[in-house]
Amino acid sequence: MGTYPPISEQLDDVESARAEGHRKMDWARQHMPIMTTIQEEFVADKPLEGQRIGMAMHVEAKTAVLVETLAEGGAEVAVTGCNPLSTHDDVSAALDEHPNITSYAKRGVDDEGYYEAIESVIDLEPTITVDDGMDMVAAIHEDHPELIETVVGGCEETTTGVHRLRAMDEDGALDYPVFAVNDTPMKRLFDNVHGTGESSLATIAMTTNLSWAGKNVVVGGYGYCGKGVAKKAAGQNANVIVTEVEPRRALEAHMEGYDVMPMAEAAEVGDVFITTTGNRDVITKEHFEVMKDGVLLANAGHFDVEVNLNDLADLAVAERDARDGVHEYEMEDGRRLNVIAEGRLVNLAAPIALGHPVEVMDQSFGVQSVCVREMVENGEKYDAGVHEVPDELDKEIAEIKLDADGVEFDSLSDDQKEYMGSWQHGT
Amino acid sequence: MGTYPPISEQLDDVESARAEGHRKMDWARQHMPIMTTIQEEFVADKPLEGQRIGMAMHVEAKTAVLVETLAEGGAEVAVTGCNPLSTHDDVSAALDEHPNITSYAKRGVDDEGYYEAIESVIDLEPTITVDDGMDMVAAIHEDHPELIETVVGGCEETTTGVHRLRAMDEDGALDYPVFAVNDTPMKRLFDNVHGTGESSLATIAMTTNLSWAGKNVVVGGYGYCGKGVAKKAAGQNANVIVTEVEPRRALEAHMEGYDVMPMAEAAEVGDVFITTTGNRDVITKEHFEVMKDGVLLANAGHFDVEVNLNDLADLAVAERDARDGVHEYEMEDGRRLNVIAEGRLVNLAAPIALGHPVEVMDQSFGVQSVCVREMVENGEKYDAGVHEVPDELDKEIAEIKLDADGVEFDSLSDDQKEYMGSWQHGT
Amino acid sequence: MGTYPPISEQLDDVESARAEGHRKMDWARQHMPIMTTIQEEFVADKPLEGQRIGMAMHVEAKTAVLVETLAEGGAEVAVTGCNPLSTHDDVSAALDEHPNITSYAKRGVDDEGYYEAIESVIDLEPTITVDDGMDMVAAIHEDHPELIETVVGGCEETTTGVHRLRAMDEDGALDYPVFAVNDTPMKRLFDNVHGTGESSLATIAMTTNLSWAGKNVVVGGYGYCGKGVAKKAAGQNANVIVTEVEPRRALEAHMEGYDVMPMAEAAEVGDVFITTTGNRDVITKEHFEVMKDGVLLANAGHFDVEVNLNDLADLAVAERDARDGVHEYEMEDGRRLNVIAEGRLVNLAAPIALGHPVEVMDQSFGVQSVCVREMVENGEKYDAGVHEVPDELDKEIAEIKLDADGVEFDSLSDDQKEYMGSWQHGT
Amino acid sequence: MGTYPPISEQLDDVESARAEGHRKMDWARQHMPIMTTIQEEFVADKPLEGQRIGMAMHVEAKTAVLVETLAEGGAEVAVTGCNPLSTHDDVSAALDEHPNITSYAKRGVDDEGYYEAIESVIDLEPTITVDDGMDMVAAIHEDHPELIETVVGGCEETTTGVHRLRAMDEDGALDYPVFAVNDTPMKRLFDNVHGTGESSLATIAMTTNLSWAGKNVVVGGYGYCGKGVAKKAAGQNANVIVTEVEPRRALEAHMEGYDVMPMAEAAEVGDVFITTTGNRDVITKEHFEVMKDGVLLANAGHFDVEVNLNDLADLAVAERDARDGVHEYEMEDGRRLNVIAEGRLVNLAAPIALGHPVEVMDQSFGVQSVCVREMVENGEKYDAGVHEVPDELDKEIAEIKLDADGVEFDSLSDDQKEYMGSWQHGT
Repeated sequence: MGTYPPISEQLDDVESARAEGHRKMDWARQHMPIMTTIQEEFVADKPLEGQRIGMAMHVEAKTAVLVETLAEGGAEVAVTGCNPLSTHDDVSAALDEHPNITSYAKRGVDDEGYYEAIESVIDLEPTITVDDGMDMVAAIHEDHPELIETVVGGCEETTTGVHRLRAMDEDGALDYPVFAVNDTPMKRLFDNVHGTGESSLATIAMTTNLSWAGKNVVVGGYGYCGKGVAKKAAGQNANVIVTEVEPRRALEAHMEGYDVMPMAEAAEVGDVFITTTGNRDVITKEHFEVMKDGVLLANAGHFDVEVNLNDLADLAVAERDARDGVHEYEMEDGRRLNVIAEGRLVNLAAPIALGHPVEVMDQSFGVQSVCVREMVENGEKYDAGVHEVPDELDKEIAEIKLDADGVEFDSLSDDQKEYMGSWQHGT
Repeated sequence: MGTYPPISEQLDDVESARAEGHRKMDWARQHMPIMTTIQEEFVADKPLEGQRIGMAMHVEAKTAVLVETLAEGGAEVAVTGCNPLSTHDDVSAALDEHPNITSYAKRGVDDEGYYEAIESVIDLEPTITVDDGMDMVAAIHEDHPELIETVVGGCEETTTGVHRLRAMDEDGALDYPVFAVNDTPMKRLFDNVHGTGESSLATIAMTTNLSWAGKNVVVGGYGYCGKGVAKKAAGQNANVIVTEVEPRRALEAHMEGYDVMPMAEAAEVGDVFITTTGNRDVITKEHFEVMKDGVLLANAGHFDVEVNLNDLADLAVAERDARDGVHEYEMEDGRRLNVIAEGRLVNLAAPIALGHPVEVMDQSFGVQSVCVREMVENGEKYDAGVHEVPDELDKEIAEIKLDADGVEFDSLSDDQKEYMGSWQHGT
Repeated sequence: MGTYPPISEQLDDVESARAEGHRKMDWARQHMPIMTTIQEEFVADKPLEGQRIGMAMHVEAKTAVLVETLAEGGAEVAVTGCNPLSTHDDVSAALDEHPNITSYAKRGVDDEGYYEAIESVIDLEPTITVDDGMDMVAAIHEDHPELIETVVGGCEETTTGVHRLRAMDEDGALDYPVFAVNDTPMKRLFDNVHGTGESSLATIAMTTNLSWAGKNVVVGGYGYCGKGVAKKAAGQNANVIVTEVEPRRALEAHMEGYDVMPMAEAAEVGDVFITTTGNRDVITKEHFEVMKDGVLLANAGHFDVEVNLNDLADLAVAERDARDGVHEYEMEDGRRLNVIAEGRLVNLAAPIALGHPVEVMDQSFGVQSVCVREMVENGEKYDAGVHEVPDELDKEIAEIKLDADGVEFDSLSDDQKEYMGSWQHGT
Repeated sequence: MGTYPPISEQLDDVESARAEGHRKMDWARQHMPIMTTIQEEFVADKPLEGQRIGMAMHVEAKTAVLVETLAEGGAEVAVTGCNPLSTHDDVSAALDEHPNITSYAKRGVDDEGYYEAIESVIDLEPTITVDDGMDMVAAIHEDHPELIETVVGGCEETTTGVHRLRAMDEDGALDYPVFAVNDTPMKRLFDNVHGTGESSLATIAMTTNLSWAGKNVVVGGYGYCGKGVAKKAAGQNANVIVTEVEPRRALEAHMEGYDVMPMAEAAEVGDVFITTTGNRDVITKEHFEVMKDGVLLANAGHFDVEVNLNDLADLAVAERDARDGVHEYEMEDGRRLNVIAEGRLVNLAAPIALGHPVEVMDQSFGVQSVCVREMVENGEKYDAGVHEVPDELDKEIAEIKLDADGVEFDSLSDDQKEYMGSWQHGT
């Protein structure tokens, strides 16, 4: 039994928190035309009636619109945070006000509370799980296998989560179907590339008051997030350096015109380092030892293990907060290395961080919403394991978005369809 | 029986043609470090000994290095062109000089000769086919099914060819295994994006002496080729307009910052139109009727059906060659619409065209070479049908290229490998 | 006589304010290698000994390093804000602690206090004025002409200030020499282009949580600031639209690949509007009437007159703060127009604004510093009127910066110098 | 007395040359809306009646439209080439057919003929000179000072020419007024940046069949031409490296995100080198010695002295034409260095070169045309020496161009004009 209380029982002034939470959600909803369209449909059709949804997400204004939309679709929802620093208490409180929603998300919760809150969500006995880092999936499989029988399916938002779900699936250890929402073109291109790229850079700039022009920006990893960070940094006139472990990605970065080199070499010339690999120990002791004075270190990958802070603390002779959101480690030789947002996901964990841009999450949560609907309506079609999001769902979201932005596009004529389907043509 | 003679029997001055062909091949080989590396390996190991390879390719200097490499690997090779306008006779003659190679490719061959040449190649009774537009596969399946039994497998280079092979495969009509070389990350990103993009624009610029800055460049289709053309045109300060039929691609172009609109609307504002769809009738009568005076029309897709020249000729009151490689159609109201390279693949068919850049083909043909080797060594692993290129082959080429360009990259530590393979982590 | 008190007399807890101010200045100084170099020189040489410097600037951490540097050079300095919303009280208090500095800058000062503070600065009877918007020059010329005799000269930082000083000069109304610091290549390119561009966009993004990708961003004016905003917005994958009144600038934007159109037309399609003209009434009633729901309106020009807020308030049926730093005006038909930072200079006046990036101001203030030194050492060489910054000073700063960034460059050989100076060459 | 005959007396088949020349000029005129507009005005007004114009220009289709326009304005024109390799004989012959024009330009003329042709032009006793490299100005001042009295003035097209004219002016040696057409915003930005950038890269690509993506492209000099080459190369995904001798330009390139380093260092890593300095010996022995095998060397500056070919020939153990337009120098250690177009202006002198894009020259020659008109109408206003082009002429051309491209822009209201002219505003 979860013993962690809902946010409304934890705040001193719940009413004013809720008011501020609603104001934040108003702003988000105003710039989320996809979710607005889907919410209208859900209100009318109640496709999720009778479902119980357990969610572990970054609880802030945009995610709240997803939570609200699922509740408006008829589901009972319990939600908690997926990162102790990313929750907005006011938004959590506003959600908790909804008759169909209980929110346990609380900023700054300690480790014990974090896992208790997950337990509290699980008390709902979810039929659907929605994850941003597979917390719900893991908790159910590891600690509550008895619930698996009644779970219809799940949705996973992150690259890292999907990566691990696939590993679990390969081990034969994943016992219900999960949509790899992260892997859709909609999610990867728009969320990872544009969302992570833009918001990480803006957060770093507004946390440090420093500029990009002429800087050597080292991007650790050239997956979708790394591509986004590199592209947007180059768009601010940084000199981009990429590190990679996969030869084809390294070559892709090289052909894009970026410098590609091992981290050991990049460490000597970089001014700003941004990790996006999803792996641990991307930047370690050997790198800290050769870095220039005043460098910035930030992480745009899921966990705070990419920049090895233990190594850094070991090397440091002094530490201080140089600025809100900037922790300075002073080396024996006087060099100062500045870590942004404790090496956690920078666009979510920095003091001024706002997470991904609203419109980007609109797309991403649009896919989530129709994936939940699909799981409810056609769950029997999906075996236990990781599933790609069906193309038609992804296209449905793209069409809603284009329509909202007033963008028209062509359609194939019958002759063209016939031509594309045929293979009997000459030169 | 093929009655079409080798190129050496068709030229007046074979010797000087061969000399010029070799000079062209020297230049190509000098800038093809991947093929140089593979050729050294093939010379040493003779992995293709005993094979007979039938090829229909654009026969110019770069492809010639592939043909030569396969021959050096021990195979007997017969080759013909895959487009009547893309053959360089001198290169064809230089190839034909090689003891293991017979080349039937001849520039400007008529329709009858084109198909006779294919027949002559088939006389070799190929064990391997290498196609740039599935000519060999089609000829064997349609006209020489008796050969299928001895065919080990094939390789297909183009988007269009792979598309059709898949359609054929779905119809149960593809009777031997074919590698979809086009679909590898190496091929798609580097050949389609960088190769098609750069060479199409440079060819148009040098055919017309016109500039890109400030021009409305309409790109028909936002697949890999379309992305390349759009990216490179924007990089020359054009104002890029994209037309699409797939909503996710349309949205991707929109989020990139390009204008997206239906062709009917783009037709009114475009200065240059470049089609890359692989489909027919992308630009037709209704579009010609509203275009501005002096527009350029070019095609970067495989076949010459994207710009409907029949429609254009019907509308025209006069035609002339405004310039080498530029055919001008004069409309009744005096507007002049200029078609580059007869609407054929512009970077291959324009008078000054040189095809894809050498380095790009080096990568693409590197994949082809190791795919042929794989088919010979492990052909029994592949059933009849279209096959993805195995990742390891693709990575092999990427590593050779990075090494040749002096680019170093990182590798995963054991701890990192373990971390990426595991799914039991907390926050 | 100025009656406005120094900041230290206005704050409740001066000590903690000073501590925070010093922490902010430490961060700035750490990323200002040019100022660090110059400060070392000034401490050693005391080139400003005996001077009295009156300044009206945006008083925050970076400017504080300039103020401090001038004081360290031996001058007595009095400083006040040049914009009621741009002062950081803690930094102001930290400056006021310096024995050679009196700071009157206070955030949120009212109109009366604003001008009284200028009077208090003038009580110092400045020999040098340093302006960011010609407040000091105007006050001395209009209200204290008796001081002109003892003024050695001035420096002006902004485009707008220089523009007006030139108008004043043409009217024969400028009675002492002023360096147009704004007009140097160093200032225009780095401060206006990179500084205004990057910081305006990051401030808007972090104030609204919205993204740039795929947005129609209308940039009012294509001077240096407009070029910067356009370039950086395009670098974030916005679709940039430029409005201009000067045909050559309009053409320059057109040739860059941007859409150029009148504001009346841009108003209908824009998602975000950013004015950079230095003029008034760039966006007015006729434009508000046709804008889309949810647009953002921001100003990156000096004064808050570019977006006509009176017109907007007249049209609005309701107003509210949609978000910190975002004021929403609701139109009769339900459309909501969102004004960022009250239409004031967005990268200075928004709640989270930090002003220009540190490194950019390092360059700009480096030029200011050596210009003040030049005025002291060689003031007699400059007549009353606006003066270009001597090339050698500008180059001095560039060399200090390149050296600090570890960038080496070439120098001309004697033969090359001779060649460039000669005009007697054939083909 | 000039003894060099007009082109029509030098060709075997003048008629067919003229026909081809006219076809080339038709194409150019079709894409030169500015010149078309001005030519209509000149035909109507005959503003140049009675003038004799001596020109030394690159005689190809676009320049021919300028020559023709001046003749249509009523002037008698004599023209010769300004570079032995840039003349198109057919265009020269077509011009020579015009009753008001005599053309002496001949491709491949030897040194003696080159100067004799200039003498033949001078026989016309020009009242106006129009230069692309100050050949006419130099010849008149050095060899025919007696003509100076009757010269009204001149126009100079190139950066290099203007540079030398200024040196001459400073020596008191320039005896009639010359417009520095090169220095106008119209010329510098569009011709130098867009024209040189695009055409140099396209020419190199189509001469070598090589690509830009992932290449280290070293740009010698970061003036307007260098900026253009760097910008367009980066736009093709090259990794741009800039060398400079002026610290502010070096810093500008650094802040743009390019690598900046001395040529001695760049020489070791560059794949392609493009010089744009206007100076000599930018690349010399010490650089050739460390270059990689297979590098390309090209020049986009006026004279062929930037890449020191004497040094290169001294080092070479063998030379050959690797390709049309590519001369290969083999070093003792086997490395091959490839010089494009003999180190001459690559976009004019390569075998396939077409010079600047048509539209760019349209702008540049538009300025030339109205400058010649201004010199005739108001020549007495200009003293001997170098003169900036009056702003109004430059704006006239910009407005014609915007109008032709269908681009509308705003104009200042009276209130706005008043505001910009005033200096008495508060905050």
